Amino acid sequence: MLASQFFLRTHREAPSEAELVSHKLMIRAGLIKKLGSGLYSWMPIGLRVIRKIEAIVRDEMNKAGAIEMLMPAIQPADLWQKSERWEKFGPQMLKIQDRHNRDYCFGPTHEEVITDIARQEIRSYKHLPVHFYQIQTKFRDEIRPRFGVMRSREFIMKDGYSFHANEGDLVKEYKKMHQTYSRIFTRLGLNFRSVDADTGAIGGSGSHEFHVLADSGEDTIAYCPKSDYAANLELAQCSAPSKKRQSPTKNLVKVPTPETTSCDKIAQLLGVPLENIVKSLLIITDSKPHLLLLRGDHTLNETKASKLFATRKFRFASQEEITSLMGCPAGYIGPVNIPSNIELIVDQSVVQMSDYVCGANEEGFHLTGVNFYRDLPEPLTIKDIRNVVEGDMDPSGSAPLKLCRGIEVGHIFQLKKTYADKMNAHFVDKNGKQELFNMGCYGIGISRIVAAAIEQNHDDRGIVWPIPLAPFQVAIATIGFNKNPEVKQTAMDIHNELEQAGIDVLLDDRDERPGVMFSDLDLIGIPYRITIGERTLQDGKVDMQSRADHIPLVPLENEMQLKVNQICEQILNIENNA
Amino acid sequence: MLASQFFLRTHREAPSEAELVSHKLMIRAGLIKKLGSGLYSWMPIGLRVIRKIEAIVRDEMNKAGAIEMLMPAIQPADLWQKSERWEKFGPQMLKIQDRHNRDYCFGPTHEEVITDIARQEIRSYKHLPVHFYQIQTKFRDEIRPRFGVMRSREFIMKDGYSFHANEGDLVKEYKKMHQTYSRIFTRLGLNFRSVDADTGAIGGSGSHEFHVLADSGEDTIAYCPKSDYAANLELAQCSAPSKKRQSPTKNLVKVPTPETTSCDKIAQLLGVPLENIVKSLLIITDSKPHLLLLRGDHTLNETKASKLFATRKFRFASQEEITSLMGCPAGYIGPVNIPSNIELIVDQSVVQMSDYVCGANEEGFHLTGVNFYRDLPEPLTIKDIRNVVEGDMDPSGSAPLKLCRGIEVGHIFQLKKTYADKMNAHFVDKNGKQELFNMGCYGIGISRIVAAAIEQNHDDRGIVWPIPLAPFQVAIATIGFNKNPEVKQTAMDIHNELEQAGIDVLLDDRDERPGVMFSDLDLIGIPYRITIGERTLQDGKVDMQSRADHIPLVPLENEMQLKVNQICEQILNIENNA
Repeated sequence: MLASQFFLRTHREAPSEAELVSHKLMIRAGLIKKLGSGLYSWMPIGLRVIRKIEAIVRDEMNKAGAIEMLMPAIQPADLWQKSERWEKFGPQMLKIQDRHNRDYCFGPTHEEVITDIARQEIRSYKHLPVHFYQIQTKFRDEIRPRFGVMRSREFIMKDGYSFHANEGDLVKEYKKMHQTYSRIFTRLGLNFRSVDADTGAIGGSGSHEFHVLADSGEDTIAYCPKSDYAANLELAQCSAPSKKRQSPTKNLVKVPTPETTSCDKIAQLLGVPLENIVKSLLIITDSKPHLLLLRGDHTLNETKASKLFATRKFRFASQEEITSLMGCPAGYIGPVNIPSNIELIVDQSVVQMSDYVCGANEEGFHLTGVNFYRDLPEPLTIKDIRNVVEGDMDPSGSAPLKLCRGIEVGHIFQLKKTYADKMNAHFVDKNGKQELFNMGCYGIGISRIVAAAIEQNHDDRGIVWPIPLAPFQVAIATIGFNKNPEVKQTAMDIHNELEQAGIDVLLDDRDERPGVMFSDLDLIGIPYRITIGERTLQDGKVDMQSRADHIPLVPLENEMQLKVNQICEQILNIENNA
Repeated sequence: MLASQFFLRTHREAPSEAELVSHKLMIRAGLIKKLGSGLYSWMPIGLRVIRKIEAIVRDEMNKAGAIEMLMPAIQPADLWQKSERWEKFGPQMLKIQDRHNRDYCFGPTHEEVITDIARQEIRSYKHLPVHFYQIQTKFRDEIRPRFGVMRSREFIMKDGYSFHANEGDLVKEYKKMHQTYSRIFTRLGLNFRSVDADTGAIGGSGSHEFHVLADSGEDTIAYCPKSDYAANLELAQCSAPSKKRQSPTKNLVKVPTPETTSCDKIAQLLGVPLENIVKSLLIITDSKPHLLLLRGDHTLNETKASKLFATRKFRFASQEEITSLMGCPAGYIGPVNIPSNIELIVDQSVVQMSDYVCGANEEGFHLTGVNFYRDLPEPLTIKDIRNVVEGDMDPSGSAPLKLCRGIEVGHIFQLKKTYADKMNAHFVDKNGKQELFNMGCYGIGISRIVAAAIEQNHDDRGIVWPIPLAPFQVAIATIGFNKNPEVKQTAMDIHNELEQAGIDVLLDDRDERPGVMFSDLDLIGIPYRITIGERTLQDGKVDMQSRADHIPLVPLENEMQLKVNQICEQILNIENNA
C-alpha cells in the first residue's frame, strides 16, 4: 500500500480528556476519531487492526467448531421481559421506541435472541451440542464513557453461545473455549492471564476472565508464577495460615495514643511492626452490628465479607453508631470487652497473632500485649475476609502469589439452565423427555483489545505493535521518492516483493521530511522500517530497523541485496507462531 | 464442511406473511430467521452468502482505490440538525435518547458523519481526492416492513463517500464507480442494469441506480437492448415523434356515447383503434386548472408532469371541479372549446394525431374526426408527459425500448457541494483559498442482494445460486455415510480434495433418506451435487449433477476417477470470470 493511496493522518496533540496512554496514542496515530461521547469512528489504519483481530478470532472459533451467524442489533423488548432483564439490566441498556411506539433495545448482548432461536430451531438432542457466535457492534450506555475505546458505548464484540444436552457437555465445551481463548490471545501476541472470575476455586468453576496485563489495568489480579492459578483481587483466596499461634510473652497494657488512630501511626508511635496491630472495623448488616478484625497491614475484601451474610450486603457503621455501640470514636475501637450483641468476625491471619496491639475502646488509648483466650475469648467466626497481598501463598501452596494489573478482554461463562428456564427453551432428550438446554456464553471485546494491546506495547515514541496486530508489518520510508528514480524503483521493488509474499507493507511516498516521516511511523508503531534514501543508496546500503529491541531483526549480510525472502519468512513465522 | 458440524435447518412451509418467492425460500432454506418486524437473524448458511458478497464488494472497492473504515451506528442529532435532515428524514429515522436524554439516531446513512470527519481531517487539496467506504448495519424504520430482507428495517449496506477538489474530479470518480459497480454485479453473477435515476438524459447525469432484473421487482425499467440506455419508467424519456401529422380526412362529428367513458370502451363502441383516441385529464396546480392530453393507449407519467410546474406538485381535479369547469362529468371532457382559463398541455405524441376522437364536453357524447388547427387551436404547450411503452424508440434512436422489472441494489450519486455547504466543510485549494468539498456517495444493499439474487435465480424446487454467491459450491450427498466405510472414505476423500482446492464444499453426512437430502440440497440451491452411494459405488460410479441446466457440468470421462481437478478449475474459473 502506498501512503499516497491510503489515508494517514497523525496528530501532535491528544485531546485533554484522554487520560490513558492508549487513548492518547490511538487518537494521535489516527486509529480512531471521536464522534460523540463514547462513540468512535475506526479510521482506515485502525480498522486494519480490528480486521486482524477479527480474522484470528474467527479462525480459532471456526477451528473449535463454533458456527458463525449474525443476529440483529435491534432487539424487541418482549424477549428481555421474558428473561426478566428488561428492567434489571439498568440504564446501561439503550432503550428505543420505533415509529409505532413499540419497545426495543440496542442489544448489549444476545442471550435472549439466541435462546429464542434455539428453542425454535433445535428440537432434539441429536442437534446438540451446537455453538453459535457472531462478531457484531454492541451498545452499552455507560454513565461516564472514557478511556477511548477501552470504555466506549458502541463497541465491537465477539459473542458466542453454546447449547448442550447436559452439564457434562457444557463443561467440556467450556474447557475447549478456555483453550481456544488462550490460543487466540497467544496468537494476538499479547501477554495475558486467564482469571477465575467466580469462586476463586481451582478447577470446576463457572466463569473465567481473560486479562491483558498492563500497568494501567482497572483490575488487580493475583497470580501464581508457578501454577496457572490467577484470580481477580476481589476473589483471590488466601490460603489458611499454616503457622501455629505463639504463646503470650507480654502483659496486657493500656497505653495512651492521643490523636493517633491509623494503624500506620500507631505502629510508628509504639515502635511495633504494622503486622502486630489488629485493625477493627464495625459494620452493619440487617441492622445488626459486627466487628471485623484484620491484620494492620491487610485490607478488607468487601466482596468476601459481603458473602458472609444472607443479604450479601453490609455497610460501615457511622461515627454515631460506633460511638453509641463501642463508647469511643472509630480509631480506638477493639475486640476486648465488646458488647455481647456485636458478633466478632476474625480474619484467619489474625487468629495466628499473639501479643498484638488493638484499640482500647476508650478515646486516646490502645492496648498492647493482647492475646486471645487470655484477654478475650477465642474467636468463633474465623473467615477469609482480606485481600491477598504479594507473597501470600497460592491456594495450592505451589508458590507465593504475585499481583499485577489487567484489562479484561474476554469472559467465558457457564450459564447452565438460567436462560433456558426463564425462556422455556426445551429440546427432546434421548428418552423422549422435554429437557432444558444447558448453555454457555463466551465474549471477546474486539475493539477493546486494540486499546489493551497498546497499553501493553508502547514507548515514549508511540505504539509498538505485536506483529500479528500491526496494521502494516513493514514500513518503507523513502527519502526523495518523487525526485530520485533509483529511490523510487528500489522502494517499489521491495514493496512489491513484500506484498507478493503476503506481508502488509506501507510505502511512505509522501515526500515528508525524514524527521516527520520517522516520527509518524514510530507513532503508528509499525514493527519494521526499511529506509531508502539517495545517500545510503549511493553507499550501496539500505537501512532496516525494528521498532523495538524485542522485535528480532533479520540479519542482512549484504544490505544492497536486501534479503526480502528472509524478512518475509521471519515475519510470517512470528505471525503464525505468536 | 461436514453437515453434522454445521447448522442446516430447512422448513417445509414458509410463514403466510411471506409474499415474495425470495422471502419464502430464504426462510425455508434456513438462510434467515425472523426476530421481529423487519428484523432478521442471518443464520450460518445465510451469513456465508453475505460474506461472499462483502468479499467481492470489498475487493472491487479496494481495487478502485477506496479506503475502508467504520463509523458508529449511533449518531448524535446535532450533525443532522446542521444538515437540516433531523426533521426532514421523517419517521424512517430511528430516533433514540440516551440515559442523559441526549438525542441520537441509529444511522440510516452516513453523509453527516463522514462530512464531519472530512472537515476536520482533510485540510488541503493535496489530500484530495479521497474515497472512504464502510460495510455496516443500518436501520430504517419502514412503516410496513415486508418481503423479508428485501424491505427489512435493519440491513447491511456498503456506503462510500468521496471528496474532491472540484466537480471534474467528482465526475471522474463517479464514472469509475459506475464501472466498479458494474464489475461488482457482474462478478456476483447477476443479470443487472444500471439505470439513470435522475433526468433520464444520457451522459453527465448525477445519479444512477443499479437494478437486478427480476419479474417481482418493484420498479419498472425501460432499456434499450442495443445501447446502454436504461431508466426508471418514471424518468424514461420519450423521443420526440418523427412522423409528420397527416391532413384531416374526416369531418368533425358529435356522436352519442351513452354511459361510455373509458378509452377502451369508446374504441370498442366506435370501432376505432385505441391510439386514435385522445384522453383528457383535468389537473389543478396552484389552484389553476390544466387540461392534459394523452393518446388513448398511453398513461400519464406523474413525475414528468409535476416537473412542468414550479411547485413540482399537482392534483387531479375532483368530480365537482370537473363539472363546474367543463360542464360535464370526467369521462366526456375534451380539448375543443374549453374555457380560456384552462391551459392545454399536450403530450408530444398527441400533436401528431389527426381525425381523432375525444370527449365532447357534454355528458353522453364524444367528438370524432377532430383535428388541430381546424377544430381547435394548434397546441402551444407540447411536452413529454407520458410513460414510455415497449416499442418506443431509445432517445438516441438506436433501437426500440423494452420494459422489464428490477430490484434496486445499488445507487451512486453526485452530491456535489450540498453537504459541504450545509456543514461548513472546507479545504484549502491550490491558491490558498477556502473551498467547499465536492462529494459523491455510493451505496450497495448487501443484504438486499441476497434476496434479489434469489428472485432472479430460483425454480420450483428452490434457490439456484449463481456460483459466486453460493454458500457452498459443491454438495456431496452420501447414502449410508455412517454404515458403509467405502462410501465414507470416498466422500471424505473428495471433500478434502475439493476443500484443499479452495472450493466451498458441504458433505451431507446426516444419514437422512436420499429424498430428504436431495430436496434439502435443491432448496438450498448448491450449484453442484456429487452423490455417493453404496449401489453406485459398486457399479464403479459416482454421480454428479448441476442444480440447473444453465450451470455447465464438467464432463467426467471415468466416473470412478472423479476429475476433481477439472471440477475445481471450472468452478474457480466461473467464480473469477462471472
